[in-house]
Amino acid sequence: MKTSDFRSIVTNYKAVFFDAFGVLKNHKGIIPGIENTFDFLDEKGIDYYVLTNDASRSPADLARQYQINGIPSLTTDKIISSGMLAHDWLKLKIKKGRVAYLGTEQSAHYIEKAGLETLSINKLRLDEVDDIKCLVFLDDEGFDWNNDINKVINLLRKKNMSVIVANTDINYPVNRTDIAIAIGGISDMVEDILGRHFIRFGKPDAQMFMFAYEKACEKQPLNRDDILMVGDTLLTDIIGGNKFGMDTVLVLSGNTLPDNAKMKIRSTGIIPTYVCDTVASF
Amino acid sequence: MKTSDFRSIVTNYKAVFFDAFGVLKNHKGIIPGIENTFDFLDEKGIDYYVLTNDASRSPADLARQYQINGIPSLTTDKIISSGMLAHDWLKLKIKKGRVAYLGTEQSAHYIEKAGLETLSINKLRLDEVDDIKCLVFLDDEGFDWNNDINKVINLLRKKNMSVIVANTDINYPVNRTDIAIAIGGISDMVEDILGRHFIRFGKPDAQMFMFAYEKACEKQPLNRDDILMVGDTLLTDIIGGNKFGMDTVLVLSGNTLPDNAKMKIRSTGIIPTYVCDTVASF
Amino acid sequence: MKTSDFRSIVTNYKAVFFDAFGVLKNHKGIIPGIENTFDFLDEKGIDYYVLTNDASRSPADLARQYQINGIPSLTTDKIISSGMLAHDWLKLKIKKGRVAYLGTEQSAHYIEKAGLETLSINKLRLDEVDDIKCLVFLDDEGFDWNNDINKVINLLRKKNMSVIVANTDINYPVNRTDIAIAIGGISDMVEDILGRHFIRFGKPDAQMFMFAYEKACEKQPLNRDDILMVGDTLLTDIIGGNKFGMDTVLVLSGNTLPDNAKMKIRSTGIIPTYVCDTVASF
Amino acid sequence: MKTSDFRSIVTNYKAVFFDAFGVLKNHKGIIPGIENTFDFLDEKGIDYYVLTNDASRSPADLARQYQINGIPSLTTDKIISSGMLAHDWLKLKIKKGRVAYLGTEQSAHYIEKAGLETLSINKLRLDEVDDIKCLVFLDDEGFDWNNDINKVINLLRKKNMSVIVANTDINYPVNRTDIAIAIGGISDMVEDILGRHFIRFGKPDAQMFMFAYEKACEKQPLNRDDILMVGDTLLTDIIGGNKFGMDTVLVLSGNTLPDNAKMKIRSTGIIPTYVCDTVASF
Repeated sequence: MKTSDFRSIVTNYKAVFFDAFGVLKNHKGIIPGIENTFDFLDEKGIDYYVLTNDASRSPADLARQYQINGIPSLTTDKIISSGMLAHDWLKLKIKKGRVAYLGTEQSAHYIEKAGLETLSINKLRLDEVDDIKCLVFLDDEGFDWNNDINKVINLLRKKNMSVIVANTDINYPVNRTDIAIAIGGISDMVEDILGRHFIRFGKPDAQMFMFAYEKACEKQPLNRDDILMVGDTLLTDIIGGNKFGMDTVLVLSGNTLPDNAKMKIRSTGIIPTYVCDTVASF
Repeated sequence: MKTSDFRSIVTNYKAVFFDAFGVLKNHKGIIPGIENTFDFLDEKGIDYYVLTNDASRSPADLARQYQINGIPSLTTDKIISSGMLAHDWLKLKIKKGRVAYLGTEQSAHYIEKAGLETLSINKLRLDEVDDIKCLVFLDDEGFDWNNDINKVINLLRKKNMSVIVANTDINYPVNRTDIAIAIGGISDMVEDILGRHFIRFGKPDAQMFMFAYEKACEKQPLNRDDILMVGDTLLTDIIGGNKFGMDTVLVLSGNTLPDNAKMKIRSTGIIPTYVCDTVASF
Repeated sequence: MKTSDFRSIVTNYKAVFFDAFGVLKNHKGIIPGIENTFDFLDEKGIDYYVLTNDASRSPADLARQYQINGIPSLTTDKIISSGMLAHDWLKLKIKKGRVAYLGTEQSAHYIEKAGLETLSINKLRLDEVDDIKCLVFLDDEGFDWNNDINKVINLLRKKNMSVIVANTDINYPVNRTDIAIAIGGISDMVEDILGRHFIRFGKPDAQMFMFAYEKACEKQPLNRDDILMVGDTLLTDIIGGNKFGMDTVLVLSGNTLPDNAKMKIRSTGIIPTYVCDTVASF
Repeated sequence: MKTSDFRSIVTNYKAVFFDAFGVLKNHKGIIPGIENTFDFLDEKGIDYYVLTNDASRSPADLARQYQINGIPSLTTDKIISSGMLAHDWLKLKIKKGRVAYLGTEQSAHYIEKAGLETLSINKLRLDEVDDIKCLVFLDDEGFDWNNDINKVINLLRKKNMSVIVANTDINYPVNRTDIAIAIGGISDMVEDILGRHFIRFGKPDAQMFMFAYEKACEKQPLNRDDILMVGDTLLTDIIGGNKFGMDTVLVLSGNTLPDNAKMKIRSTGIIPTYVCDTVASF
C-alpha cells in the first residue's frame, strides 16, 4: 500500500488529534522518534491533543508517562480520555448518593473528582443498594470477575439505574503477541445478558471528538477540517474522525498491519484521507 | 404508570427539544392542543426546537406544516433535521464530483444546498461511476427497490466511497395501524449484506443533540441541564437525551403506550427523568 | 495456500455432499470438467448429493439444468434444496388455510406440493387475512419490493403467524462482478424491523445436513465421517459440515479466493479438513 | 392468558420432551406434583425424555437428582444433555491430542468419556500448546475468570483450532431472585472479541432435537408430530420445537410469567401450540 510522509501532510492543518496506543506508544512504551514529531509540531505552531479510550488512570497520570519518556510538551491539558466524559456526565446528572464501579481504586478517580461517593463492586452488598444511584464500568482490573460480574447483573435486576461505560474498547494489547479483554468487552456481555442499553463514552462516538474539538477551539478558532485525526484503528479512530468531519490518517504502526490495510479499507468501507507508516520521525 | 403534568415540569427549564412524530404530530396531523403548549412556552420565555430524524423534506417544508396548522411560532430556524447534519457533512467533506442518492427529488435538497451535483440512484449507470464521490440514503421513496437497492450494492462493490445515512429510523407510522420501512432500515440491510460501516446521522447519536445545543446557545447561554428533551421513544429520544446530559420526558402519546411504559423502562434500563401523558394542553 | 487434489481425497469417503454455486456451477453455467468428476465418482461407487440453499425452483427443475449440461447422473433424487425442508415443515404443521408467500409462481411449487392453497403477497389484501395461516419467504423475485415488503410487515403486525424462510442466503452472484440480495437478506430486514424470530431453513443449519444424511443412509449404511462436505463458503458449507461431524473440503472456485483463503480461515476460526482448488477434473 | 390442562393435551401424543429448569425443577428443587405427572405418563404408556442445555454434570448425575427426589422412572437413558452432543462430536472428530476446557473437573467427564486427554484451562501454559487439538466451553465454574478467559483468547490467537460450546444458555437462575452468567454467555463474549465462529450445541439448535428424536424412535416408530415439546422459554424450547416440526407447550412455571406470556408471544412471533400453567398435577 502506498503511504505518505506524515510531516508533509500535517503541515496543512492547524491541529492534530492523536490516538495513543498503536500511534504514540506500543507494548514497549513510547515509540522511538515520536519526541521528534512533537518538536516539529511545536516548531510549526501546530496544536495537538491525545484522544484515548481509557478510564483506568487520570489524565495527569497519563500525561506523566509521556513526560518522563521525553515528551515534556504532552501536559495534562493535552490529554482527552473517555473517563473525562464519564466524569462530566456524573457531575451533571448525579446529584447525591453513591456510585458503584468496576475497576481499580485508581480508576475511581473519575467519580471522586465529580464530588461523589464511590463503592467498589467488590465491597457492594446486594442487600444494601438503596442509595446506589449509578453504576460505572471503568477498568477490567480491581475486582473478581467470577463473583463481581454476576453481582453487577443482580444489582441491575434488583434496582434499575443509569449505567455508564467509560471505555468502549473491547480489548487491549498487553505485549507483543497477547491481548486482554477491556472493560468495554465485559460491559457488552452484561448488556447482552440483561437486554439493557448502557450509556457508552469513547471513540468512535461523536461526543469524544466534540469534547476535544471544543477544547482545541479555546486556543484558536478552528473549523472541523482544520484538524487531522491520526489513528491505527479503522473502526474507532478513522470512522469517528470521518463522521465528525475531520481529515484522517491511518497509521500502520499499530493494529492495522501494512499487509492488510488495503483489504481492510476495502472490506469495511472506512476510507482514511491518508495512510502513513508511522508518525515517528528522525 | 404515574405521570406528571408537562406544564409543571417544563417551567424549570430554559429550553425544550421536542421529537416530532408521536409528540407534536401523529398520523392524523398536528395533535390537538399542541398549539396551546407553544403559546405557553412563548409566554414563559422558554425556547424550543424540534429534533427530527427526517431527510425527506427541507426544514422550510417541515416548518410550513406546523405553521399552516396553527403553530406560527414553529419557524424554519426551530427545525433540526438529521438531513441538516448530512448536508453539513457533505458541504465540509465533498469538494467536487457527483453525489448519488436514494430518495425523492425533494429529499435531494439536502445535497443540492451543499452546492453539489446530484444523481438519483434510478438514473445511475454502473458503467459510469468514475465521478461519483459519495452515496446518500435520504428517503424510502423515489426509487424502485427491486432494481435500485441491488444497484447500490454493486455500485459500492465497484467503487469504495463514503456512504451517508441521513435518517437512522428503521420504520415510521403511515396510519393508525400500519408502518412502513424507513430509509434507515434499508441502509441496515445494505450494510449487513456488504459488511460495510456507513456514517449515520440522527437521534440517538450525540451529533444531533450537539447541533441543536449549539443552535440554542446562540440565543442564550445554556448548560446541558437547562434543557429538557421530550420524546416518545426510549431507544432514540430518551437514551440520546440522557447521554447528552439533558433531563428527559417520555410522553405516552406515540409509540410507547401507557400499558407497557413501565415494563419497557425496566427491560431496557433507559430511564426518563419524567413521564407525561402528552405535551398537549387545553 | 497449499491445496490438495480432490480425487485423491474423495476416494477415502463413501459419499460426498456438494454445494452447488461456486462448486459445480458459476455465473457462466456448469463449471467445465465437473462432468468428469461425476464419471469418476460413479466409477468408484461413491454416492453424491447436491445441497443447495434454493427455494426458487423445484428439485426437478434444478436437476434438469445439470442433465442438459452433460451430467446425466445428477437426477432429481440427488438434489436437496432448502425449499424441500420448508415443504416438509408445511406439510407437517399446516393442516388447512392459505399460505402467503414472497416469490415467483415457480417457487410456490414447494407450498402447493404440500397440498396447501397459496397466495402471492402481491395479491394479498390486508383486510382479508383471516384464513392466512403462515407466511413463507421463497424467492427475491415475483413481487414488488416497495409495496409488498411493507405489506408483509403490516400483515405480521395484524396477525401473528408462523413465518418460514426457505433460503437463508443473504445474496447470490448474478454475473462475474455483480451480486443481488437473496430472499434471506430481505427476511433479515423484516425480522429486524419487527423484532420477531422466524423459522429458517438452509445451510449452515443442522436440519439441512440431517435431511441429506438420512437420504444417503437409505442407500447404504453411513457414519457421519464417511461423508465429505464440499463447499466454497466457510460460513455456510464448512462450519455446517464441521458441526455435523463430517469432514470438509473448501474449494477456491467460488466466493473464497485463493488469495485470502488462509486469512479467512484464520480470522473466522472455521477450519476445513482440506482445501482444493476445484472439484473439476480433466 | 387462557391456559390448558396439561393432562388433557399430553394424551394426544406418543412421547414428550421436557425442558428441565422452569418445567420439572426450579431453584428449590423438583417442583412438587411433578412425580404425579410421570406416574400418569407411565400409566398411559407415553414415553418421555428430558432435554437440557447442561454440560456441567454427566447424564447419570443429572438423573440421580430426579431419582432421589421421588421420580424413579427418570433414569439416565431418559436424559439428553447438550454435553452429550459435544461428547459425540469430540469422539467422531478428535482422534488424538489433548482437549483444553473451561469448566469443573466434573464437567470434563464429557471429554474423558470420548477417550481423550483433558487439560483444564487453569493448568494450560501458553508456551506448550502444540498438542492441544480443541477447546471446549463446558461450565462457568472451575476456573478463574480474570486470568483464564484472557488465556483462552490468547490460546486461540496463537493456535487456530476447533472450539466447541457445550451449552448455549447465556444465564441460569441461582435462587428466587438472582441469576448467574452461564458458559454460553462467556463464549459469546470470547467470540465477539476474537471475531470467530464457534460450534455450539444445545436448544434451540436442531441437532439437540434430532438426537432426542432418534433415541425416542428406537423405542417405537414416531412421526415428529407424535411428540410434544414442553418448555418455559420461547427462544429456546418453543422456537426449536416448532422448527423441528413438533407441537409445543409453553408452561408458565419458569421464566415466562403469566403476566407477560401473551405479550411475549406477540412480540417475538414465536407461537406455542398450547399454553399450560404447569406440568405438575395432584
